[in-house]
Amino acid sequence: MQAYANLFRLLTNALVEQQAVLNTSTPKQMYEPMAYTIGLGGKRVRPLLTLIACDLFNANPQSAVKAALAVELFHNFSLIHDDILDNAPLRRGSATVHEKWNRNIALLSGDGMMVKAFDVLSECDTTHLKAMLKLFSKTGIEVCEGQQFDMNYETLEHVSVEEYLNMITFKTAVLLGCSLQMGAICANASLQDQIHLYEFGKHVGIAFQILDDVLDVYATNDKFGKQVGGDIISNKKTFLLLKAFELAVPSQKETLNCLLNNKNISNPDKVLQVTAFYDSLDIKELANREANIHTETALKHLMEVEADQTKKENLKQFAFDLLKRHT
Amino acid sequence: MQAYANLFRLLTNALVEQQAVLNTSTPKQMYEPMAYTIGLGGKRVRPLLTLIACDLFNANPQSAVKAALAVELFHNFSLIHDDILDNAPLRRGSATVHEKWNRNIALLSGDGMMVKAFDVLSECDTTHLKAMLKLFSKTGIEVCEGQQFDMNYETLEHVSVEEYLNMITFKTAVLLGCSLQMGAICANASLQDQIHLYEFGKHVGIAFQILDDVLDVYATNDKFGKQVGGDIISNKKTFLLLKAFELAVPSQKETLNCLLNNKNISNPDKVLQVTAFYDSLDIKELANREANIHTETALKHLMEVEADQTKKENLKQFAFDLLKRHT
Repeated sequence: MQAYANLFRLLTNALVEQQAVLNTSTPKQMYEPMAYTIGLGGKRVRPLLTLIACDLFNANPQSAVKAALAVELFHNFSLIHDDILDNAPLRRGSATVHEKWNRNIALLSGDGMMVKAFDVLSECDTTHLKAMLKLFSKTGIEVCEGQQFDMNYETLEHVSVEEYLNMITFKTAVLLGCSLQMGAICANASLQDQIHLYEFGKHVGIAFQILDDVLDVYATNDKFGKQVGGDIISNKKTFLLLKAFELAVPSQKETLNCLLNNKNISNPDKVLQVTAFYDSLDIKELANREANIHTETALKHLMEVEADQTKKENLKQFAFDLLKRHT
Repeated sequence: MQAYANLFRLLTNALVEQQAVLNTSTPKQMYEPMAYTIGLGGKRVRPLLTLIACDLFNANPQSAVKAALAVELFHNFSLIHDDILDNAPLRRGSATVHEKWNRNIALLSGDGMMVKAFDVLSECDTTHLKAMLKLFSKTGIEVCEGQQFDMNYETLEHVSVEEYLNMITFKTAVLLGCSLQMGAICANASLQDQIHLYEFGKHVGIAFQILDDVLDVYATNDKFGKQVGGDIISNKKTFLLLKAFELAVPSQKETLNCLLNNKNISNPDKVLQVTAFYDSLDIKELANREANIHTETALKHLMEVEADQTKKENLKQFAFDLLKRHT
């Protein structure tokens, strides 16, 4: 986004520098996978949000660079370990750390990256350190809890929509809120503004995840970039599936369970039939409506933030751009 | 030790409280293994050192309890993950977390425990937080680096005694130094005193590890509590083995390599013959001498600390008691 070109440049330079440090540290068996993971790229949404939040209150974004780096390092730690847990072969189109090296290397370089996140945080201004460390560690724990809930739900027979929303809040959304609040803290924003920004980020994150579930079923292949229906094929407990179970009458529940457990159905047929089932219950519309509720809540919180109107508009637009991919 | 009965009680109460919190947190799949690991006990040397250091400067040890807990949580995180890396079935006579639950649970509860350590640290007094976080995260990174070096050395053909000493310093000794310095920081000790205490702890830690290697070969079984010669049987690169390789002339090196690679030799024979080899080079004496150098260095640093003489004597005795098991 044009409005954030300078912030993005500032962030990119800091990341390049961080990567260079990692690439020359020893033991290289531990540091190379860290540099590799950061080098895989991604949209850098979280650290950028930290800088955006700092800039929103007219503070020098340079003062939030360490906090932004800490957020990105933590996020990358969680990617390395989540990929071990999920046995994922690919991350952003490249081999995951445990595939490219091995699981022990992935475990240890992930650990190192997490401690490094706190180490970078320790370089932040003393005035803000306690508030930042409290927020950052609380969020870190919630991210771990969210990952554990996600793992639990894989084998659990009954998961409610509410439990699912709680899980994605912890696993994904709180780190977006935290990223923004970290920047606000650096800028000496009031606690009230900090919390409004946190809630803004959190609800954008929840909306994003719900729309991600919708997209997995309803995207056109060329827009999506991965196989449409992947969640259906793997019986993943998404918002759509859990909402369908919530609304289905007993006979429909049985039909849906049969579809999920049918070992003889082809994947394309399964996708077609589950999608038809969703359509019969208007699940897509309900999911979009739920996402909208969170987007609206997010915007209400942003409106409450006492800051420059144009800058708030830019942040709103940034969030819309994030969500747009999903609608 | 009698002199520290009150500090130990303070610590035990804090740990019991922490364990109760962990035991009632959700998701229990993540928190139960944390409480279990802390409940396995151990001598609690590290957190006790934090309280001892705080008390050494006549500050209220209560002010160092959070720092002590952070140190113990970090140590327990490293145990859970090290056990995964080493594929260890037992820890303190009980099943390791990855054995009792599974590897994913062990990975994630270890992660959670590490973040928890930083979370507990965030509750420390604001005045000291920056210094503590810097020290704690720097040490944490070194512990990870030490573990990586240890893993590297398993498959490396040539490891020098110097590299080995560097590895045990990082993997084990720095956390002892850090534990003491954390307590000293809480007590507003001068930077000079902090560093002397850190060096004291570090060198005690190095001496401890060297003596641990000696004990594995030269302990009597009833005193040791585990199989004497285990390191020899597994070809572990200990101080003794690396020192032997350093001193051996080429023909002796060949003999030693033959012994290590002989698949037909019985374990008791292997232990006997490698021990005889060590004896021929006076390795036990050289190891004890190296340990003594570190003990002496530790004591010199302790002498430099400006604190009550009796309290320093107690700390010296505490270190001797730790090392005594090994001589």
